[in-house]
Order: sequence, then C-alpha cells, then structure tokens
Amino acid sequence: MNGAHSLVHTLLAAGVDTCFANPGTSEMHFVAALDQIPGMDCVLGLQENVVTGMADGYWRIARKPACTLLHCGPGLANGLANLHNARRAHAGIVNIVGDQATYHRPHDAPLTADTEALARTVSHWVRTSSRAEDVGRDAAAAVQAARSGPGQVATLILPSDASWNEGAAAAEPLAVPALAALDPFAVDNAARVLRAAGRDTLILLADSAVRGPAQALAWRVAQATGATLLADFMNAHVERGRGRLPLERVPYVTDLAIKTLARFKHIVLVGAKPPVGFFAYPGKPSTQYAPEAQLHRLSRLDQDPAAALRALVEALGAPEAALPDPGPRPEPARGKPTPEGLAQTVAALMPDRAIVSDESVSFGRGFYAHTQAAPAHDWLHLAGGAIGDGLPVATGAAIGAKRQRRVISLQADGSAMYSLQSLWTQAREQLPCTTIILSNRKYNILIGEYAGVGATPGATAMRMLDLGNPDIDWVRLAGGMGVEAARAETLEQCADLMRASFQRAGPFLIELMV
Amino acid sequence: MNGAHSLVHTLLAAGVDTCFANPGTSEMHFVAALDQIPGMDCVLGLQENVVTGMADGYWRIARKPACTLLHCGPGLANGLANLHNARRAHAGIVNIVGDQATYHRPHDAPLTADTEALARTVSHWVRTSSRAEDVGRDAAAAVQAARSGPGQVATLILPSDASWNEGAAAAEPLAVPALAALDPFAVDNAARVLRAAGRDTLILLADSAVRGPAQALAWRVAQATGATLLADFMNAHVERGRGRLPLERVPYVTDLAIKTLARFKHIVLVGAKPPVGFFAYPGKPSTQYAPEAQLHRLSRLDQDPAAALRALVEALGAPEAALPDPGPRPEPARGKPTPEGLAQTVAALMPDRAIVSDESVSFGRGFYAHTQAAPAHDWLHLAGGAIGDGLPVATGAAIGAKRQRRVISLQADGSAMYSLQSLWTQAREQLPCTTIILSNRKYNILIGEYAGVGATPGATAMRMLDLGNPDIDWVRLAGGMGVEAARAETLEQCADLMRASFQRAGPFLIELMV
Repeated sequence: MNGAHSLVHTLLAAGVDTCFANPGTSEMHFVAALDQIPGMDCVLGLQENVVTGMADGYWRIARKPACTLLHCGPGLANGLANLHNARRAHAGIVNIVGDQATYHRPHDAPLTADTEALARTVSHWVRTSSRAEDVGRDAAAAVQAARSGPGQVATLILPSDASWNEGAAAAEPLAVPALAALDPFAVDNAARVLRAAGRDTLILLADSAVRGPAQALAWRVAQATGATLLADFMNAHVERGRGRLPLERVPYVTDLAIKTLARFKHIVLVGAKPPVGFFAYPGKPSTQYAPEAQLHRLSRLDQDPAAALRALVEALGAPEAALPDPGPRPEPARGKPTPEGLAQTVAALMPDRAIVSDESVSFGRGFYAHTQAAPAHDWLHLAGGAIGDGLPVATGAAIGAKRQRRVISLQADGSAMYSLQSLWTQAREQLPCTTIILSNRKYNILIGEYAGVGATPGATAMRMLDLGNPDIDWVRLAGGMGVEAARAETLEQCADLMRASFQRAGPFLIELMV
Repeated sequence: MNGAHSLVHTLLAAGVDTCFANPGTSEMHFVAALDQIPGMDCVLGLQENVVTGMADGYWRIARKPACTLLHCGPGLANGLANLHNARRAHAGIVNIVGDQATYHRPHDAPLTADTEALARTVSHWVRTSSRAEDVGRDAAAAVQAARSGPGQVATLILPSDASWNEGAAAAEPLAVPALAALDPFAVDNAARVLRAAGRDTLILLADSAVRGPAQALAWRVAQATGATLLADFMNAHVERGRGRLPLERVPYVTDLAIKTLARFKHIVLVGAKPPVGFFAYPGKPSTQYAPEAQLHRLSRLDQDPAAALRALVEALGAPEAALPDPGPRPEPARGKPTPEGLAQTVAALMPDRAIVSDESVSFGRGFYAHTQAAPAHDWLHLAGGAIGDGLPVATGAAIGAKRQRRVISLQADGSAMYSLQSLWTQAREQLPCTTIILSNRKYNILIGEYAGVGATPGATAMRMLDLGNPDIDWVRLAGGMGVEAARAETLEQCADLMRASFQRAGPFLIELMV
C-alpha cells in the first residue's frame, strides 16, 4: 500500500468522509487514492480560501471534521485567511497539504515554500509525514487533534514521495481525549458572586455555551440571580429562534460595548474571553468592561460549559424556568430595504431548520433583535474577522447538513468579492443555498471607521472605500458561475425571490440593492 | 506629524508613487495620509492577491517599487501566494501591512495573527515599526531593501498606534547598495570552458540576463564558441521579438528537459540556478542536467549579468555579431484554436511595445517559437508557479507602463479563477488590457500529470480535475465586473476581437474556446 492509500483508508476509518479539494501536481497520488477507494465525498473549490472556508462551515454543522486537499505552501497560503477564521471558530479540520518530495525540497524548485511556517500560523497541530510508513499513523493523529477540545485545525503536510512510496499501512482511529474536568472552585466562586451580586453580574457566553443544553441552564441561573446574559459579538455557531434562548450580543462598536458593559461589577465567563475591542482606537481602552469589574472564569474552552452551568444551577439551587417566549413571528417587511426590514423578512420566511451564514458586516449588526421569533435555526458568524468566509462557510454548511437544509447567506458585497468562487461549487453540487448580497457598493464599515480619524474622505480615500465605478453586477457574476440570480430593489421583491428560491433544490442569488 | 504622514512623505521622497491597496480599519490613518498628501496613485484591488500581484507586475515594467496597503495578518495571508511569485520574480515591493495597535495585540482580538511569521515566508526584509518615531526611518529602509539586489520583497508592518501617534518625521531616501563586483575567476573559468568545449556547453540565462545588453553579449559569446543559449522555463520578464535575441526555454516536462540538456558537458549559469524539475516524479531525477555535467556560475543574482558577459566577451575576444533575423512576421492563423495558431495570431496582431502576461499553463508551452518575429515586446511569466498571478500581473504591468502600452493576457481558465477580481480593477482604471481566456474547462495540466500515476481518472478524480458542470461563462463574469467581453470559437473570431480591443482605451476580454 502506498502512503496515499493508507491516508484515505485511515481517514475513512476515523469517520472523515468529506474532502474539500483544490489539487495540484504533487497531490496526484492522493487524488488517485481518493478515486480508487470508495467512500470519500470530494468537493472541488476553485480557490483555496473557498476550500478551507467550506471545511469550517462543514464542521460547524456536521460537528465532525472534513479534510482538505491543498497544493504546496502557496496553495495553503491562499487558504490561510479562512483557516484563521476556522481557528477562531474552533472548527475541527484535517488540513492536508501536499508538498514537494522530501528529496526534491533542497533543490528549491519554484513552488517550494516554508509550508510548515505557513501552517503554524493557523494550526493547533502541524506534522510533516516524511515517510510513507508514517502517513497512516500521522493521519490518525491529525484526526484525533482535529476532534480534540472544542475542535482544532490539524495540518498534515504530505510530501509527494511519502504519498507514492510503498510500505504504508492504514492506522486505527485514535481515541479523542475527554474534555477537561470542571473546576469546583470556579463553580463555587461563580455561585458566590451570583448570590452576592447577581444583578450586577454579566454572564458572558461563547462557543458551545450558546448552543444546546447550556442555553436553558444559563437562563435558569439568570432567572434565579438577576444576572444578565450576553453572547460574544462573533460566535461561530449560535442556536437561535423559537424554543431557544433569546440572546443579545456585546455590541461591535467600542463606545456601545463600553456603555453596555459599564454597569457590571462582575463578569462570569463561560467559554468566553474577556470582552475587548475588535480594534484599538486613539484614546479608547482596549478592554470594554468597567476597569473595576472582576472577571470570573466558570469554564474554559476545553471544558464543557453545559456541565459547568449544571453544577452552577445545583450550587445555586436555581429552579426550573421556561425559556422566554420570543413573541409572534414577524411579517415580511415592505418598501425600501433596511436592516430591520430585511431581518424581519428573513425571520418571516426562513424554512424550518434553516442555517444562516452571516457576513453582513455593518448592515447586519441589528439582525438579532428581529429574528428571535423565527423558527429554530442555526446562525453562523465570521468568527475570526477575516472577511471572505460567508459564502464558503455557507457552502460547507450545506454539505455538512447533508444538502437537506436551506442555507441563507446574508452577505455584504465587498466581503463576497473575496471568495465569490464559492458560487461555482454551490452550482456544481446543487446546494440549497440562497445568497442575499447586500449591495451598497462600498466598504461601508470603513467609511464609518474613517469618520473616527476626524476627517472627511477626499477623492483618494474614496477610491479605496467605494466599490462603485464600475458597479458590480452580481446577477451576471452568479450567472457566470452557473447560479441563477435576480436583483431586488424592494423588500417585497426580495421576499418573492426568497420564497421562490426556497422551493428549489439548488442555489439562487438575490442582489438586494441597499 | 503622525506616523502615517511620515510614511507617505518618506515613500514619495524615495520615488514610491503608486500604492496598491485593500484597506481595513487599522489602516484608516494611513488612508487619511494618502488622501491628505498629494502624489500617490492609489489603486484598489478587491482581494489581496490581486493587490500583491499588481505590485509584482508594476515592478517588472516600471523597474521601481510600488507599495501595497494590506490589512492585518489575514489580509497579508490572502496576498501571500502572489508575494511568493514576486519573490521568485525578484520584484521589488514595499509591502505595507497595517496591524493591531501594539498595546492591543496582547488582548488577542479576533483578527490578531502572527503577522511577522506570515511576512517572513515571502519577504527578504521584515520590520515592525512599533513607534511613530521609527516609521519614517523604517519606511526609508524598506524602500532601500526593495530596490536592493535584483529587487526584493520588503514588508513593513505598521501597528495602528504607530500610524496615528504624533512625533514622527519623514526620512530621506537611503542609497541603494551597488551590485556586487564581478568575480574575475568566474569569468576566466567560463572563458576557459567555452574555449575548450564550447559546443558541449550550455549558457543558461535567467533574470536580467534575458533582457537588455546581456542578450547581444550572450549571442556574441555563443557565436564565437559554438555554445548553446537557453533561458529558464519561468522568467519574470523577457525582452523578446524583432531586434531581440531569439531564446528557447528549458522545457517544463521533465523528460523533455532531461533530453534537451543531456548532451551538455558544461553549463554556464548567468543569473540562473541549476535546472531542476518543477516537481519530483517517481524514478526520475530531481536535476535535469546530465549527472556528469559541470556547473559554472558566471554571475549571481546580486551581480550584473551584462557586465559579466561583457568581461567574458573580452576574455574570449568574441567579435561583434548581429542578432539573428527571426524571419517574417507571422500571418494570423485560421480555424480551430491551437497553441501554434493562437501564438501566430498574437504575433501577427500585437501592437508595438506590447506586454504579454503569460499564465497559459499547459496550452502555452509552445508559444515562444511562434512569437519571435513579432514586434519588440515584453513577456512576463508566472515566476513562482503559484497560479493566479496572470491577471494581477497584467493589471499592475499596465499601470507600470503608465497606461500607455497594450497588455495581452494569455490566461488559462482554471488559473484565472484564482484572482478574477483583477478584472474589476482593470475596468475601474480603464487599463489597456486584452485578456484571452483559454477556456478548456478543465485543469488540463493535472489531467496530464494524472496519467503519470499510471491510472485513468475515474468519476471521483474527474470531479477534482474538470471545470465543467457548470461551465464557467467568462463573458458574464467579465461583464459583472464592468469589462466588455465576447466569446470566440475560431482564430478568425479571436483575431477580429483582438484587433477591436487594441483600438480601445480600456479593457476587453475574449473567451477563446480551446
């Protein structure tokens, strides 16, 4: 058996059955092994950031790792930004990078690069399999690493000779380490704080604390103590809608965040980090909580937040408490597109168990308030802030949901241009993806930020902030990649197109002029 | 003066007057300085690999560095592949990466990444300006580094507080170090070899040895000694056409390269590295020259190849020799598109002083033979092998030529998809770019490479090698970004569209079905 065959057998045995790929010459034996061994669903992306973003979206919904297939250091480089996002999302990915043969590397052929150095910038685990005999064992370790903790990026670098040489063997799956035990002191401490000063306490939820049983447990704690619940601004995956906990987020804008957090004397962190600004601004603090606030960590990322909250419920003797009713489902809004109106329309029309991929940037900051009464759905954010993950994450999420659930992309136009090639994969795979491009033809967030400099942008600045001249025609771009599309000028038109798209098996794109 | 103002003043004083940009929040003070200080031509790219590829193309034609403006580690990551190509092309670039404020970095906000580690993978020079007072001095050093040797990638990382803090000062330009002196031993040794075994000797030219006075000098040496001249397969920039030296290249395919080089007992390297395969293949050598061949380095990259060849001409007493006549200019070819026919058609129709950006991949390997009798032109290759630089390099080259020369992209479709956003910048800047998409709707090079595995690709492999289903419609994609476009099925149609495009001020795209 050659190294490539041992790799594919090991991946399949460990439950990795989806490969997001953009191959090159040095991966041909890996491609051949994928061809010859049944069982792997191979999905082509036409640029590597699409590939890595799809693997991220897949994990968020499937909760098991996919593998990638990337070509040498520069191919990995093209996919790094969405691996950065995946790392921040705690997505488990087996990131496989083919590379120059071990004995060819010293010759410094043109594509040779420092693949390991590139990988280390985004990976929790990096290993180069330098011999065919090691590939199976290393692949099993990579899957184990990807599944460990809340999910990790594990990069396996595969020189082409390790792929084609004989003498390899498939490896058995390795056991995934259990999450770390709870810290009884952390539970006791949080209980003490909440008993003493519940109304002055924020419970900040992140990562898996915004999903599943943690939600109801957090609500019981809040009801029993008067504490406030908030989620991080950027969450990889929130379970929302009817039957779930209505959560607001720490605001993005630093002044608003500081104002929101000012009154809390204590912050209990459940899988969350202390709230800090996305960026620094002159004369403003980096941290967004009150300087005198005390921070208390209830659970780390490598601990189970639901178990920690259950222990806290018990310590407090917090009674059962029904989740609050979010009120009636909104009606579709009418007229000129506004953030509120679009959010209401999406909430009114989304199918059951929809997945929302939200890279709406500035337009979408208020979407949460108007979508809580929608049917139960999953909401995926840009966890690492590197724009260009909305469309790839949507594409991978659709595959992670076995192509059975509608994925709705709420997608800023400027960000969409970073990875528009995703639309081609949506068309090829006939994925149930509805993309709503929020077409304002500018980097609107940056125009807002520019105001903070204390100046009005002149012609040179606007050349770098404005996406008009020429206007991007998203209907033609989508059509060029095989995705049907139409333009909407009003929310009624948008609603009609959304309804029609939800009846289709495949993708559709709505260019919403905002 | 704040750091950003000192940066812009220093760049302008050092002759850097073009900025390829994709800004973010942490660069707003830099954007403001560019807005407030006249003199910088700021060109927006909608994805960072477009930005860095434009800077590469600009250098190759303008022979002076542009600067970039990138956003944090992930923005740099998106542009790394074309910086890899630029590094291989020895392009001088002042690569400026805005980043988190120095005091904000420890808070690990979402976009925080190891920017220096990313930069080091592609840069000859990396520095972080941690104080406003340092920015001017560091910028002058960055420009010096970019202009040093044959051209270098110099990355200056600019934390946002270094940009907005006061107390900065513009710096004077720093002198660029002279190229290293010739090695008289290397000249004597090459002369000795060429006298003794000229007909068994290959003179391999690369980098600036394929341009300018080095061409005629190399020809005199070859004529006097019977030596053979070849260029590297991948050259960043070759001066070709009538009045220039007709050069063939070392073939890409390893077996052909080995066959071509087998007869040479000596190889004299002029700015070139020993010829090695782009990739390794099972059972084939990494090096493409005869095992018994002796390698002789006439000049290194940091030496002037023309000076070295002039010294060699003198040592040999090689007489003046007229460059060979390339024969009559070809007529446009007719009928079904073939590589030879397209090359002849391009040679027949290209305007004087055209620039060819060649990312034709497998379709274009034979273009050289049929374009030597075209008018004098500049030919730019994918120097680092990371596909996706053809369109950005063309775009930057058009700006480097002050928008006065026609740029013709010979562009494989699969590679074009990596950085198609370039077309938008061509439209906005109304650049004289004619793009010929070689639309074969597959990764044809990989289908060829797959054969080397010894297997026929099945359905799974073809899903990763075929770009059909859905077919990409380049006319719609171009139109979606404001570039007029049309499809050609025959070489006559292609010729008509080329002629029409050359009459325009702005860009045009031809989708040639091959």
